[in-house]
Amino acid sequence: MSLGLSPLEFREAIRSGKHTGNTSGYCPGYVQGNVVILPNDWASDFLQFCQFNPKPCPLLGMSEKGDSTLPSLCEGLDIRSDLPKYRVFEHGKMVEEVAEISSLWSDDFVTFVLGCSFSFEEALIADGLEVRNIIEGVNVPMYRTNIPCQSAGRFNGDMVVSMRPFMAADAIRAVQISTRFPSVHGAPIHFGDPSLIGISNINQPDFGDAVTIKSGEIPVFWACGVTPQVALEQAKPPVCITHSPGCMLVTDLRNSQLAVL
Amino acid sequence: MSLGLSPLEFREAIRSGKHTGNTSGYCPGYVQGNVVILPNDWASDFLQFCQFNPKPCPLLGMSEKGDSTLPSLCEGLDIRSDLPKYRVFEHGKMVEEVAEISSLWSDDFVTFVLGCSFSFEEALIADGLEVRNIIEGVNVPMYRTNIPCQSAGRFNGDMVVSMRPFMAADAIRAVQISTRFPSVHGAPIHFGDPSLIGISNINQPDFGDAVTIKSGEIPVFWACGVTPQVALEQAKPPVCITHSPGCMLVTDLRNSQLAVL
Repeated sequence: MSLGLSPLEFREAIRSGKHTGNTSGYCPGYVQGNVVILPNDWASDFLQFCQFNPKPCPLLGMSEKGDSTLPSLCEGLDIRSDLPKYRVFEHGKMVEEVAEISSLWSDDFVTFVLGCSFSFEEALIADGLEVRNIIEGVNVPMYRTNIPCQSAGRFNGDMVVSMRPFMAADAIRAVQISTRFPSVHGAPIHFGDPSLIGISNINQPDFGDAVTIKSGEIPVFWACGVTPQVALEQAKPPVCITHSPGCMLVTDLRNSQLAVL
Repeated sequence: MSLGLSPLEFREAIRSGKHTGNTSGYCPGYVQGNVVILPNDWASDFLQFCQFNPKPCPLLGMSEKGDSTLPSLCEGLDIRSDLPKYRVFEHGKMVEEVAEISSLWSDDFVTFVLGCSFSFEEALIADGLEVRNIIEGVNVPMYRTNIPCQSAGRFNGDMVVSMRPFMAADAIRAVQISTRFPSVHGAPIHFGDPSLIGISNINQPDFGDAVTIKSGEIPVFWACGVTPQVALEQAKPPVCITHSPGCMLVTDLRNSQLAVL
């Protein structure tokens, strides 16, 4: 699969089954998003949860009820087939992982697209910073914290954070760069002592993979898009469909368009 | 002395001898600057040193040779009398501290005004952050580091930094806020382990006073306007006049005008 495809061409390759795996590294420069699909009855609570907790749940777009398109983000989208892999949850438990969801679709579904750290990681790398999880070819390490999200209706839970280690000067630069991207988690929420936010062992992430922290480096923590997933597991909606980790929605939006400065 | 004076009125009070002490806290909202006066023969080296090292030596203004005014910064300035106290250096050694420098003035002198941390401290406080040296009513602690400045002609030396302790979330906010003010030192240059920049004992500053660092707080280090003073001590110009610590030039420029964003 060529890396030079446009987002529309790439989504068509996914839809036709030509591309089935991870989206990381494809369509560089374009925003990739987390996807959450919920019954309409749960949508307003979830929307409120996103609005109350914009750092872990930065909302990029939301569909009309039953509408499988999202014209503000993607030309010609069919959300039922344009992700490489989906996870289906029932009452908060994952029941299957599938390549398309046409047979599961309901006119009652609402689709949410949330910003993802790929966008600010691209900006960090463009500035010459070393993003350890990318250098080491693993998923970013993610941790449950003791920082409570503001609850909204049936949704609540603690914030999940991702971690990237940097020397202090690079960490300061990373704060500046990610600050420009509030709709993809924005500035870090913590750095330094992990125990201050309830992380007991930095070498045992709750999600993703551990990465090397070199001597003198400081762990820097960003609010993470896995937060809403944890809230969904706790809220236990009868059905919920998300992207599979790493198999994101590739949108027509450019990362640079998300920069507020 | 009323805190409500305009910068011009305050400078006139200084000139007439009505105000003789520290300028800290006066004319809130207005930029206060470090002052360096040098013989013309040394001016171009010093200008280059400032341009090579903008974080410790952010140049706000520079006079014409022999001109005791600085119309871009201050209405009706007489730099020979409008600071409460001056320090006179000969060959890098302080020889006296005086209330005005008319008798020392030479048509060969060039005046430099450099930004000072008062401006970004005001912005930090306005955002609700606690600036420890202000809360404790002492001078900010300053340290010599092992970070070399880029040398220019006869000027060289290591960077001096000021330190303010914060909890991580406030430190991140402080990075964001001070980033907006590149002409008054801008973002921090380091945080965390002081030994990584050559500071052996955080409780023994080389200039200013030690401040309390509470449990969980991280020392955050900014490039400091004492850096050029150290470079001047090493360069040993035959004569050099600076403000006395805390007795700054109060300008007509507003701090908010220095914000680039």
